[in-house]
Amino acid sequence: MEGDPTLRLRVFDLNCWAIRYLSKRRQERVRLIGDMLQREGFDLVLLQEVWSEQDYSDLKVKLGGYYPFSHYFRSGVIGSGLCIFSRFPILDTLLYQYSLNGYPYMLQHGDWFCGKSVGLDKCWCGIQPLLLGSPQLHAEYCREKDAYLPHRLVQAWELAQFIRHTSKGADVVLLGGDLNMHPEDVGIRLLRGWTGLRDAFAEATRFEVSGRGRAGCQGTPGVSHQPRCLSQGCEDGCTLVPNNCFTDKSELLPFPLGIRIDYILYKAISSFIVKCEELKTTTGAVPGMDVPFSDHEAVMATLHIQRQGQAAGATPSTAEPMLADVVTEARTEVGVGLRVAQQQRYSSGRMAVLALLLLLLQAAAALGALAGLDAGQPFPKLSFCLLAFLAVGILLLATGLYLFHTMEVKMLHGTEEQMRMVLQALQERP
Amino acid sequence: MEGDPTLRLRVFDLNCWAIRYLSKRRQERVRLIGDMLQREGFDLVLLQEVWSEQDYSDLKVKLGGYYPFSHYFRSGVIGSGLCIFSRFPILDTLLYQYSLNGYPYMLQHGDWFCGKSVGLDKCWCGIQPLLLGSPQLHAEYCREKDAYLPHRLVQAWELAQFIRHTSKGADVVLLGGDLNMHPEDVGIRLLRGWTGLRDAFAEATRFEVSGRGRAGCQGTPGVSHQPRCLSQGCEDGCTLVPNNCFTDKSELLPFPLGIRIDYILYKAISSFIVKCEELKTTTGAVPGMDVPFSDHEAVMATLHIQRQGQAAGATPSTAEPMLADVVTEARTEVGVGLRVAQQQRYSSGRMAVLALLLLLLQAAAALGALAGLDAGQPFPKLSFCLLAFLAVGILLLATGLYLFHTMEVKMLHGTEEQMRMVLQALQERP
Repeated sequence: MEGDPTLRLRVFDLNCWAIRYLSKRRQERVRLIGDMLQREGFDLVLLQEVWSEQDYSDLKVKLGGYYPFSHYFRSGVIGSGLCIFSRFPILDTLLYQYSLNGYPYMLQHGDWFCGKSVGLDKCWCGIQPLLLGSPQLHAEYCREKDAYLPHRLVQAWELAQFIRHTSKGADVVLLGGDLNMHPEDVGIRLLRGWTGLRDAFAEATRFEVSGRGRAGCQGTPGVSHQPRCLSQGCEDGCTLVPNNCFTDKSELLPFPLGIRIDYILYKAISSFIVKCEELKTTTGAVPGMDVPFSDHEAVMATLHIQRQGQAAGATPSTAEPMLADVVTEARTEVGVGLRVAQQQRYSSGRMAVLALLLLLLQAAAALGALAGLDAGQPFPKLSFCLLAFLAVGILLLATGLYLFHTMEVKMLHGTEEQMRMVLQALQERP
Repeated sequence: MEGDPTLRLRVFDLNCWAIRYLSKRRQERVRLIGDMLQREGFDLVLLQEVWSEQDYSDLKVKLGGYYPFSHYFRSGVIGSGLCIFSRFPILDTLLYQYSLNGYPYMLQHGDWFCGKSVGLDKCWCGIQPLLLGSPQLHAEYCREKDAYLPHRLVQAWELAQFIRHTSKGADVVLLGGDLNMHPEDVGIRLLRGWTGLRDAFAEATRFEVSGRGRAGCQGTPGVSHQPRCLSQGCEDGCTLVPNNCFTDKSELLPFPLGIRIDYILYKAISSFIVKCEELKTTTGAVPGMDVPFSDHEAVMATLHIQRQGQAAGATPSTAEPMLADVVTEARTEVGVGLRVAQQQRYSSGRMAVLALLLLLLQAAAALGALAGLDAGQPFPKLSFCLLAFLAVGILLLATGLYLFHTMEVKMLHGTEEQMRMVLQALQERP
């Protein structure tokens, strides 16, 4: 590849849904993913939700021949679930864990325990350094009443800031992951607008739904790509589709074609240009099998990286007045989340104070009884003890919640403040 | 400053020890710090442990005339305590919170609640962008048996990685903060070796202990600077000194001159050279007052930034074979921490299982009693309930500890793995 002015990169991205004990037919699917990656021979493979280190180790052994370089990012209680396999040497790695990631008491959602992060690898692809990121953002459990939207926006903002600050040392930035946002959502517009990252699906000169050979869905650069693709009958690059046996069909009722929440994004920093030649997705079951690779569809992009004569400036995909609108919209949502968090902090603080008062009252009554001051019927000992334990339990729980919501308020406030600074800078620019 | 080939920067760094309700004479000291900063007119001011947002707001109002740009970094329950005041416009900010920062149950130390971080501001200083970082690392409570060493090493490593990855977009990197490490400690050697940052104290052509006018302690670049300075009777740039009325004298017994744990570090990235012209520290009480600014001494450096003809390469202050030794040493310590964390995880897991077994036993006994199977003396109800509550309490606590130590193991393991990769790369290099 050395000396070759163009580099053709085949990139694979998949949310593997490989949670030990919980994900259906996990081991079989991980084996199928390994077989396919070995057969297809991509250049870079970005996987999310590989929660079991054993699965990663098995994949590493299996893929070692074709992908000699790999990295598994560790964080949180369960792990980040992120790993990268590469044909090119990995020079350096960095993990950024988002400051907010749901609530520890929402056990049924469990995002808090995952330590959701963006994992960054710096690779040396022949002639140029390439920054390779694999992010995952907080899941959306209810689109109509999305309690996690402010957290996801903080994550999208932190991801954008992280990419902006770390990308200067590379020629090309490549991001592939499950962003848990629809293409028109404010978070994805914020991420793309503020970093200048381009959406491989929107930029692809050829889009092909794997296994059907429907080609020629020509793309023109733009923020939202859906109407064009829908009108041509494409599956719109969706990665959560109704004909995948593991998806929740009721969740997809308002979206008969499915939704697109997994992305490959890229940008050239210095004197390079990147073009997306082709984009593919899988569609449900693996050919010849009754099981898909995951509950998400894989995204596969073929990118062309070419050196050009002069250095390319930063070319954000969103014009600055539009960017200011997007930041304002995101800031409003973060502000709404901030007020909710302040309210929750106040409620848990009040609950802690009430429990403390109850305990003090009980202590006074107990002291009174000891001093022989209680004239009437004594309070039954068992109920008295149960009440005291209940009060202690509530006090501990409420204090924990108060501390947690204090942290949440701090981070939402910090993000809102950063966005305010950026808006001011955007408005002051000539 | 525009068009001027050299830039003279006066930098101020201080750990303010401004904890609401806990720090002695806080408001008076914050007022004194504000007065001095206003009077002295530095270019960049880096403050740590400003835990109260009210103190920051007061300083911002007071200093607004001379330092029109400022930023306060929010994180953790109490906050990061970091803030920056600048004469130059702040273009962008980023906060990186270390993945490990002590233990939540060590309430008497409290580092866990602070959300210790490194705050990064990108400033525009006349003709060049400058990356300005204000870090604080976990405190050292007992040097002989330092239980927090692995956490501090993970923080030093993350700080180094963060600086390496974010510094490419700037011409000059400047870091000022309380690193809680002596100059010869493995953590500071790791940070300096892996980033190429230079220690302003070691590089200063003139070192002056403020208020005494003892000048001419000539410096030559080197890793450790102590023997030279000691032989000339300098105070060795110490920032925790015995004649500060707030320092813990017993802690300083083995170090009669004090210790140096606050640093100003810098490096030039592109076609610039940076030289430290002068370094000063405060020494105890504010002149004419009976109170010092803080329990730490302030560090003040005058830096010269000059454009040079050709781009300067990365010039790490530690040669690569030495760097490999430092990384190996750090990795060994992280490995020790990993084994301790694994042991703690195992102990808390075992405790949780025992509490669960006790609960199940009680449930079986209760069910037996309900079914009329207990032949002998019934267990007193009150003691039975108390025991059940105790078991529930232990179960919850032990589960919490298990989750916490699982996260700790993941992060220590991840850092050890990153260090292994770096060592391999260092050894493979020709």
